[in-house]
Amino acid sequence: MTEEDAPPRAGLSRRGLLGLAGAGVVGVGIGVAGDRAVASASGTGSSGAAASYPFYGAHQSGIVTAAQDRLHFASFDVPDIDRGELIELLRDWTLAAARMTEGLGAGPVGAVGGAYDAPPDDTGEALDLPASGLTITFGFGPTLFEDADGNDRFGLAGRRPTELIDLPHFAGDALVPAQSDGDLCIQACSDDPQVAVHAIRNLSRIAFGRAALRWSQLGFGRTSSTTRAQVTTRNLFGFKDGTANVKAEDTTQVGEHVFAPGGDSQAWMAGGSYLVARKIRMTIETWDRASLREQERVIGRTKGEGAPLSGGTEFTAVDLDTTAASGSPTIDKAAHVRLAHPDHNAGALLLRRGYNFVDGNDDLGRLNAGLFFICFQRDPRSQFVAVQSSLAGSDAMNEYVRHVGSAIFAVPPGANRGGFVGESLFA
Amino acid sequence: MTEEDAPPRAGLSRRGLLGLAGAGVVGVGIGVAGDRAVASASGTGSSGAAASYPFYGAHQSGIVTAAQDRLHFASFDVPDIDRGELIELLRDWTLAAARMTEGLGAGPVGAVGGAYDAPPDDTGEALDLPASGLTITFGFGPTLFEDADGNDRFGLAGRRPTELIDLPHFAGDALVPAQSDGDLCIQACSDDPQVAVHAIRNLSRIAFGRAALRWSQLGFGRTSSTTRAQVTTRNLFGFKDGTANVKAEDTTQVGEHVFAPGGDSQAWMAGGSYLVARKIRMTIETWDRASLREQERVIGRTKGEGAPLSGGTEFTAVDLDTTAASGSPTIDKAAHVRLAHPDHNAGALLLRRGYNFVDGNDDLGRLNAGLFFICFQRDPRSQFVAVQSSLAGSDAMNEYVRHVGSAIFAVPPGANRGGFVGESLFA
Repeated sequence: MTEEDAPPRAGLSRRGLLGLAGAGVVGVGIGVAGDRAVASASGTGSSGAAASYPFYGAHQSGIVTAAQDRLHFASFDVPDIDRGELIELLRDWTLAAARMTEGLGAGPVGAVGGAYDAPPDDTGEALDLPASGLTITFGFGPTLFEDADGNDRFGLAGRRPTELIDLPHFAGDALVPAQSDGDLCIQACSDDPQVAVHAIRNLSRIAFGRAALRWSQLGFGRTSSTTRAQVTTRNLFGFKDGTANVKAEDTTQVGEHVFAPGGDSQAWMAGGSYLVARKIRMTIETWDRASLREQERVIGRTKGEGAPLSGGTEFTAVDLDTTAASGSPTIDKAAHVRLAHPDHNAGALLLRRGYNFVDGNDDLGRLNAGLFFICFQRDPRSQFVAVQSSLAGSDAMNEYVRHVGSAIFAVPPGANRGGFVGESLFA
Repeated sequence: MTEEDAPPRAGLSRRGLLGLAGAGVVGVGIGVAGDRAVASASGTGSSGAAASYPFYGAHQSGIVTAAQDRLHFASFDVPDIDRGELIELLRDWTLAAARMTEGLGAGPVGAVGGAYDAPPDDTGEALDLPASGLTITFGFGPTLFEDADGNDRFGLAGRRPTELIDLPHFAGDALVPAQSDGDLCIQACSDDPQVAVHAIRNLSRIAFGRAALRWSQLGFGRTSSTTRAQVTTRNLFGFKDGTANVKAEDTTQVGEHVFAPGGDSQAWMAGGSYLVARKIRMTIETWDRASLREQERVIGRTKGEGAPLSGGTEFTAVDLDTTAASGSPTIDKAAHVRLAHPDHNAGALLLRRGYNFVDGNDDLGRLNAGLFFICFQRDPRSQFVAVQSSLAGSDAMNEYVRHVGSAIFAVPPGANRGGFVGESLFA
């Protein structure tokens, strides 16, 4: 795609341009292409790496989209803006996100005689890279509707969905405020980490002075398949993860469990979803010293094949009722697969979309590693909260994990071309 | 490759097995394959992703090897072991590294009746993944030869190469001890981050009680090509990086600048190299607000094409002597490309092999991002130190970077099959 075909970046608000440009030089011909214009990053869509997903549509991409390999997730606070500025920010983010998911830059890099004396609109590190399956998914946190002091900053308090609860405290939670919550979130997924990082960086930049980065997380090695064509990958416990995930092809399940229907507590969320993120630190040194027997007991599946301990192969249904010769259940009472199973949680299903993370090591020389768990659902009360309540109490895995970050966001429906993400909230 | 073809893991020392197994269960039949043996990760070498590089050879892989896309680098200290135990550790690491670079696990995952009551030898997260171009490169830090108190812990003080200097303090250094130095290092590079992480994790585990992780760094988006077939990639300044790098095909340059010849200060290093790592934090928010003109002045190249400001296209040689109509040099006196140029540094050339990093964000909401610079050379005194001395004083880029980590390692020649990495040091 050439710059001429591209969605307009001239549509960016003056504040968006200011974010790109920096104060003091914003007047200097930004957006005027000169004879030395630099082509934006292009993606032909002709190869796998160049896959591109539409930004506009009924649902946001990045939910049932085939899970990409890499993640950069960012949470923002918007302490100092008003309703009009919030809308303007979402418009700017929409324009830039639509460009970037097509493999373009957030804006042109610059041109002599035009923007040469202004900062480039795009930071450039993805200039030569294809779209790489980039999806950018936006969400609204509870504090956007009503802040911690009960202030209705944006006139949105009456539009908070009842599904967008403040998550309860779960047994064993060791949450770090600096890695939790946020007014807004952006989930950027791509098959190339540089493309995901580029997206978050440029969206942060556009938001300069409006939204401040609260926390962010890089991930790799998707731990869930979201389509049948994807092979199941492994988490850092070394076990296959996401075998029984909701898949995009299961349209009935997707319809019932993932997307919010019209006529829910808030009609503006029709076609949207609710995202819960949990940063789960694994004490992998302890895990690595547990016997294979103990590891398989904890999970309830074999390590190699990923088959349920009740028998069969990876995709054989888990049978929670089989017993060993001794009479004890084949799948332990406290096994993760049992406690997370829909049969154990009134049918609750989640679309999982988590990633492994390694954030270097701690002062004791232990890898700071684990799972950045992300799930999408229609109603967190009967889905994530139900499942996590089961797990938090008695999951055998609790000995090896610690939840250190937590956040919930309402993910609005997709934007229409010419509109902006979250538009229905302000209608 | 099947487990039967694999290099022996039974060769691991008792302490290596103890590291894998954890105290208390080491006697329980580890290594005895039973009827439920789980195949190790296999790599067929038939696809690009499944590329595999030999571990054994005259030189260690991971130096002139075509730079892979992802990095996990780890530095270790060995405060509590003696010479014999150090050799044993290197033997264990050699065996496990040779296995993993072939796409196998560090050891079998386990088997019923065999090792089922012991921890799996391999942690499992790379079980289904091909070799993914994994290279594992080991190095010895100055403190291995003589610790900070001047102790010759391993009887190696007399074998310290004069090239393995303590790096001098450079102007502007803001080094964090916890991200610097180390007795030993392992550079794991792969096209799949999960494979690189798996390698460091399992080597750490094998070293349990012998080598303690001091610091580690993940990287993505290789910032240097090391072969002519590789396209030049971009760093987080958005500029192409490594255009003028030493390439594997330049055998004369490689011979003169990268590998240590025989007959140097220490014959045991013949065929080895010296690795300097610098963690360079970029103040990207400041950079992103600099004009395109300023950015190009700082680098000395155009942002889009990567051509020298003296003219031409990316691979046109830099001409440091051209002047603009005003009479001032086309390439600024303080431009990075000028100060790093061999003509400015008595011909000094480096084989660069750095990676971009993003370690989340700091408390001020700024991305903690930059370049994890790695270079290989024959003599750091006349190469890295010469170039960095030029840069530290007057590089226009210094306004936008801060060196926060630093380390130097002697990278011994490659191991022979049946031997171990670093064997010549102990001969």
